[in-house]
Amino acid sequence: MSLMGFIDKNLSFWTQEKKGRENEVVLSSRIRLARNIDLIPFPFLADNNDQAKVVELVKGAMKNQKEFSYLSRNSLNLEDRQALMEKHLISMQLVKENKNSGLWINADESASIMVNEEDHIRIQVLLPGFNLENARGKANDLDDLLEQKLDYGFNEKKGYLTSCPTNVGTGLRASVMVHLPGLVITKQINKVLTAVSQLGLAVRGIYGEGSDAAGNILQISNQVTLGQKEEEIIDNIKRVTKQIIDHEHNARQWLLNEKKIEVKDKVHRAYGVLSNAYTISSKEALELLSQVKLGIDLQLLDKERAQIFKELIVLIRPGYLQKLYGQKLDEKQRDIKRAEVIRERLKN
Amino acid sequence: MSLMGFIDKNLSFWTQEKKGRENEVVLSSRIRLARNIDLIPFPFLADNNDQAKVVELVKGAMKNQKEFSYLSRNSLNLEDRQALMEKHLISMQLVKENKNSGLWINADESASIMVNEEDHIRIQVLLPGFNLENARGKANDLDDLLEQKLDYGFNEKKGYLTSCPTNVGTGLRASVMVHLPGLVITKQINKVLTAVSQLGLAVRGIYGEGSDAAGNILQISNQVTLGQKEEEIIDNIKRVTKQIIDHEHNARQWLLNEKKIEVKDKVHRAYGVLSNAYTISSKEALELLSQVKLGIDLQLLDKERAQIFKELIVLIRPGYLQKLYGQKLDEKQRDIKRAEVIRERLKN
Repeated sequence: MSLMGFIDKNLSFWTQEKKGRENEVVLSSRIRLARNIDLIPFPFLADNNDQAKVVELVKGAMKNQKEFSYLSRNSLNLEDRQALMEKHLISMQLVKENKNSGLWINADESASIMVNEEDHIRIQVLLPGFNLENARGKANDLDDLLEQKLDYGFNEKKGYLTSCPTNVGTGLRASVMVHLPGLVITKQINKVLTAVSQLGLAVRGIYGEGSDAAGNILQISNQVTLGQKEEEIIDNIKRVTKQIIDHEHNARQWLLNEKKIEVKDKVHRAYGVLSNAYTISSKEALELLSQVKLGIDLQLLDKERAQIFKELIVLIRPGYLQKLYGQKLDEKQRDIKRAEVIRERLKN
Repeated sequence: MSLMGFIDKNLSFWTQEKKGRENEVVLSSRIRLARNIDLIPFPFLADNNDQAKVVELVKGAMKNQKEFSYLSRNSLNLEDRQALMEKHLISMQLVKENKNSGLWINADESASIMVNEEDHIRIQVLLPGFNLENARGKANDLDDLLEQKLDYGFNEKKGYLTSCPTNVGTGLRASVMVHLPGLVITKQINKVLTAVSQLGLAVRGIYGEGSDAAGNILQISNQVTLGQKEEEIIDNIKRVTKQIIDHEHNARQWLLNEKKIEVKDKVHRAYGVLSNAYTISSKEALELLSQVKLGIDLQLLDKERAQIFKELIVLIRPGYLQKLYGQKLDEKQRDIKRAEVIRERLKN
């Protein structure tokens, strides 16, 4: 399959471009709802029978949802699972642990339901750009659909019961993936992130807890699910995100005013290296892609469209590369193939 | 004037490409003869009258040489002198010191005669590639021409008398400019240079004593002019240079066999940066141009011809850039213009 054909068939909806000032900074918006079925032990306590029962119950509830397909974890090899994780469709936990778990997913991969991960059910909606309201609407629709058929664990005082206490309450986690090269280059990022933490939000790298801010990409999400209404959670993260967007745009404007030639040089060099390298690590590629994206956003680099950034930050990941080339690749081979994919994609 | 027009009009013969295994390594060959006129004090002791007399005597001797033009030092501004130095046509001394000195030069700038530099007369022939014999022949022709009209300071025992004792004897300095990226990358360069020194040859950077090995370019020349015949001096430097050429080619072959992807990556990245940068220092540009030249020689990079290297190592120098743009430029402006020249030249 050609690279462009592979991209058309294999990239999720969230990687599509969404124009506009806010969407230049916010790459994607995600809503995740944690739910459990009443009277069945949480996955980490459940035996095989319990787990199988959860799968069957969700299958029943999803029976007429023609838009969704089911992928059982054991039908997927390691590379498939890794690629799903790289698309932000399943968690690291589902990649690694071997149990009776699986994933319902719709055609454009904007909506999915993980079964038997940390909770029995994790509904996720993931959309391009700054779009939490829409994501929340779609997640709630899926939640309503399941709730018609399933008996959720719920407590009038505490709300939805979840495996980990941090999710009890609304079970809602709202997050945005933001690209902040301006704040990183102007060395304001730590100040901003400290402020974000003080506002009760969590900041993590592109692949969740423990991953670093590769490519100047961060995920910002709510920490608290208990004692706040869904609307309050969403409003809080929206308000903070808007402030971050403003700070990032201010930093970019300062760079344009004060450091134009240096930034122009930096983004063009990044483009030059990416379109010519024959071996490249994931870390370096993300860093350079981030600079290219900045150059496109600032209209300093007219060779590419912004969408390439979102496509490539997924395409160059290990699982994805192995899917694209249809073979297992060691680290050195991946570095070579990664450079090849980037060169080819930049030519298109 | 267009860049290519400027190049056609302003680059010396030695920057032209010469194909072949030896000429991939030896960029140019130079013969310089030091001569002084009898009974006139050496330049550093000469008064204004003495210096003027030397100029007049050489003018008389060169009267019918239509191929040559005379440039008096005082008719040249600092940028002109700097550009002549960057072309290896005059010495740093002639750039800096203000005295009654000057330069005879032929149309393709392969032959020149400096007047009142360290010695009264310095004949130089500079040719592309590994071509010391030819250079020596042309230098001797010029020497014979002058000797018909001038009375050289000469001692039967010591040979030609020169201002600095290291030049007494033949007054001959033979040198080759070599490009040794293979020996640098494989970390063999110091071993080779130590051996070269032990064989009685001097090793210097691209712009003479005190300049470093920027761009992996070195000049190798004889140290001794006394007690050896011209033939012996030339034979010695030719023999040593051939050994260096072999070592360099062995290093390149090892890189091709053992590190092909790494070298391919390195040379393509260098090309990518050079063809996209918007500001670049002289040091970085030389380093990257050296890598591009290596890539062309190894046929790993088919985007350019080898000649570009010799053209650009001259074009990107401060004096040249200022001549090309017709204005004084500070360091930051030069870095920007240098990047512009390189981008434009790589597009042609």
